[in-house]
Amino acid sequence: MFEFNLEGTLGLARAGTLHLPHGTVKTPAFMPVGTHGTVRGLHPLEVERAGAQIILGNTYHLHLRPGEDVVRGQGGLHRFTTWPGPILTDSGGFQVFSLEGLRTIAESGVEFQSHIDGGLRTITPESSMEIQWALGADVVMAFDHVVPGQADFSLAEEGMERTLRWLSRCRVRHGELVESQRTIDQTMWPIIQGGTHAELRMRSLEGTLARGPWTGIAIGGLSVGEPKPVMHRVLEGLSPVLPPSIPRYLMGVGFPDDLIEGIARGVDLFDCVAATRNGRHGSAWTADGKVNIRAAAHRNSDQPLDPKCDCETCHRFSRAYLRHLFMAEEMLGLRMLSIHNVRFLVRLGELARESILAGTFDQWSRDWLESYHRGIP
Amino acid sequence: MFEFNLEGTLGLARAGTLHLPHGTVKTPAFMPVGTHGTVRGLHPLEVERAGAQIILGNTYHLHLRPGEDVVRGQGGLHRFTTWPGPILTDSGGFQVFSLEGLRTIAESGVEFQSHIDGGLRTITPESSMEIQWALGADVVMAFDHVVPGQADFSLAEEGMERTLRWLSRCRVRHGELVESQRTIDQTMWPIIQGGTHAELRMRSLEGTLARGPWTGIAIGGLSVGEPKPVMHRVLEGLSPVLPPSIPRYLMGVGFPDDLIEGIARGVDLFDCVAATRNGRHGSAWTADGKVNIRAAAHRNSDQPLDPKCDCETCHRFSRAYLRHLFMAEEMLGLRMLSIHNVRFLVRLGELARESILAGTFDQWSRDWLESYHRGIP
Repeated sequence: MFEFNLEGTLGLARAGTLHLPHGTVKTPAFMPVGTHGTVRGLHPLEVERAGAQIILGNTYHLHLRPGEDVVRGQGGLHRFTTWPGPILTDSGGFQVFSLEGLRTIAESGVEFQSHIDGGLRTITPESSMEIQWALGADVVMAFDHVVPGQADFSLAEEGMERTLRWLSRCRVRHGELVESQRTIDQTMWPIIQGGTHAELRMRSLEGTLARGPWTGIAIGGLSVGEPKPVMHRVLEGLSPVLPPSIPRYLMGVGFPDDLIEGIARGVDLFDCVAATRNGRHGSAWTADGKVNIRAAAHRNSDQPLDPKCDCETCHRFSRAYLRHLFMAEEMLGLRMLSIHNVRFLVRLGELARESILAGTFDQWSRDWLESYHRGIP
Repeated sequence: MFEFNLEGTLGLARAGTLHLPHGTVKTPAFMPVGTHGTVRGLHPLEVERAGAQIILGNTYHLHLRPGEDVVRGQGGLHRFTTWPGPILTDSGGFQVFSLEGLRTIAESGVEFQSHIDGGLRTITPESSMEIQWALGADVVMAFDHVVPGQADFSLAEEGMERTLRWLSRCRVRHGELVESQRTIDQTMWPIIQGGTHAELRMRSLEGTLARGPWTGIAIGGLSVGEPKPVMHRVLEGLSPVLPPSIPRYLMGVGFPDDLIEGIARGVDLFDCVAATRNGRHGSAWTADGKVNIRAAAHRNSDQPLDPKCDCETCHRFSRAYLRHLFMAEEMLGLRMLSIHNVRFLVRLGELARESILAGTFDQWSRDWLESYHRGIP
C-alpha cells in the first residue's frame, strides 16, 4: 500500500501509478477539490465520469462544518460523501494562514476566528493530524506554515523552519494514531516550504527527507502571488534532488498551462479550485483557449463548448443553451461548465501521461502550450 | 396524434394514456416545471430518471430570455434543451397577470414591463400563439385572463368572458400557423376560468366547448389564494360535465395532497414549481410528511430522506450528508432534494394510476392522505 511505481520518464517528466487504499492513481493527475466534501456543483458520479481518480477535501472547512465528529460518525469521508475512490485532505495550514488579521501564529499552533461564526479556534500540528485521521482520507498532509509568494528571506525562512519543526510533531502524532487504531489505512505527506528562495527550498527538502521516510512529498507555498517563471525556477531546482521513488504533489496548482509546465518539471499531482470556480463564473477552457459563455457571440451557436472535448457537457449541450442557462442564472449551467473544466484538466493529465510513455511529451507539450497561448495571450 | 385513451375510471378518478408527438403520457401525471427550459437544478437525464413523462416551459420567461427566435433557431425547445419527451408551454397569461401594477390589460392584449430590463412588452392572444409555435412544444395553452382567487363575481366574469373572446382569437391564429407551416405537430388547449363562482365556471366550460373541438382542456385560476375546499368544490362542479374523452389539466397545482384530491375529482395532469422550489429550500416530502433537512435532528442521521422512496437521492445519500450540503450552501444539496421531490410527485401519479386500474383508489387515497396529514397537520 502507498507504493508508487514509476513507469516512464522523459527529461524531468514522469508517468507512474500510485497505490492507495481506495484505488490507484495513474499520474500525472489532476485532483478536483471538494472543499466541503463535494466537488462544488458536481455529483460524485459526475466527478467519476470526468475521469477523476482522486479528490481533495479541505480540513479547515470540514472541521468547521460539519465537524470531523459528524464525518467519523458516518463512517469517514468516503462513506459520508459516497465518493468511493481515493481522497487526500490538506492540513488546514493554507486556509488558516490565508485568514490574514484573523489568526495568531504561535509555535504551538495557529489560533484563528472561524469565518462562519467568528468563534476562536485553534489548529495545532497534532490536532490537524487528529482531524484528518477522523476524516479518514487515504492521504493526509502535514500542518505547515505558509508565507505569501513575495515573502522576503527571513519570513520565508521562519515559515520553512517552523514547518520542519511542526513536521516532526505531525509525524509523531500521526504515528500514534496509526498505532493506536489500525482501522484506517492512511499515510501522511510532508510539505516543502521556503518561498521563492532556492537556498531555503533546498534546506526544506533536506530537513524533510531527514525526518522521513515518506510515501509522497508535496511542494507548498507556490502559486500564491509570485510570478510564474519564479514558480518554474523553484520546481527546476527541486526536481533533480527530490527522491524519484515517491510522488510529488504541487499544491494549489493550477491552470491548464501550469499543469503542463509542472509536469515538464517533474510534478505528478496537482489540485486547484480554478476548474470549478471558473466554471461557475461561465469561463471554460478549450484546447484553443478560454470561452466566456456569456459572450453574445454564443447566443445562436449550436456548437459545443469545445469540439475536441469528450466530456458530457460537450457531448450534449450547445453553447446557445449553456449561454442561456448562465443568462437566466440557472444552476445547470454552472454544473455543466464545471464538469467540462474538470474533465479538461483530468484529460490533460491523461494526455501528458500517454505522451510521456510514448516518448513524445516534449513535442506534444510545446504544441499544446502554443495553441493554448494563442487563445489566451 | 393527440389522442387520449381512457383506460379506467373509479368514481371521478381516471387513468388514461395521452399520445403526443414526442411520446406518450400515462395519466394521472405530474409535469415538472422547466421555467427557463430547464427544470431548476436538474439535468434532463435526472428529470427522465425521476420518471417524468412531460415537462412544462414558461412562455413568458422564454419569450424574454433567450427569446423565441433563439429557441427556434436551435430547432425548437426539444433540441435546444435536449429534453426528448413531450413539452407543454403555458401561454404567458398567468405570468403577466401576476405582474400587478406593472401591466395594463386591454381587449387587444396585455402590455407589461419586463422583470428583467423594465422594457415595455405586449402579449396578445395572437402573439402568444406565435411565440409558442416558435418554441415548438407538443401542447400549447390559450392566452387567458387570470383573476385572483378572491375575485368577486363581476371581476371573475370579466376575466372569464375575455378568456373566451381571446380563445376564439387564439384558435384562429393557431390554426393559421398549423396550416401555414406543417413542420411542427402541435395542439392547443383552452383554459376554463371563472374564479370560485360555480355559475361562471359552468358558463366558461360551455363557451369553451362551443369553440371546440379540443384535444385537451385546462382548468386555470385555481390555487391562486382561495381556500382548498373552494378549489375542491369547483373541481367537483366541473368534473361531471367535462368531456370524458379528453385529458383535464389543473394548472399550477400542486402539493402532494392537492394531487390526490385533484385525481379523486377527475384531474389527469398537474404542474407546480413547489417540488423544485421546496427542494431548493431544504424541504422534502415523504410519505410521512415533510422533512426540513436543515433541522439539527438530521446532523448524524445515516438514514435516507425517505426510506420508502426509490429516487436517486434516497438511494445514495444520508440525511447527515444532505444536511451538511445545505448548511455549507453547496449546490448538490438543492439538486438532490429537488430530484427527490419531483420523483415524489411523479410516483404519486404512478401509484394513483395503479390503484385506479386496480379498483383500490378510494382506500389507497384515504390511507395516503391520512398518513401524510399526520406528518403535516
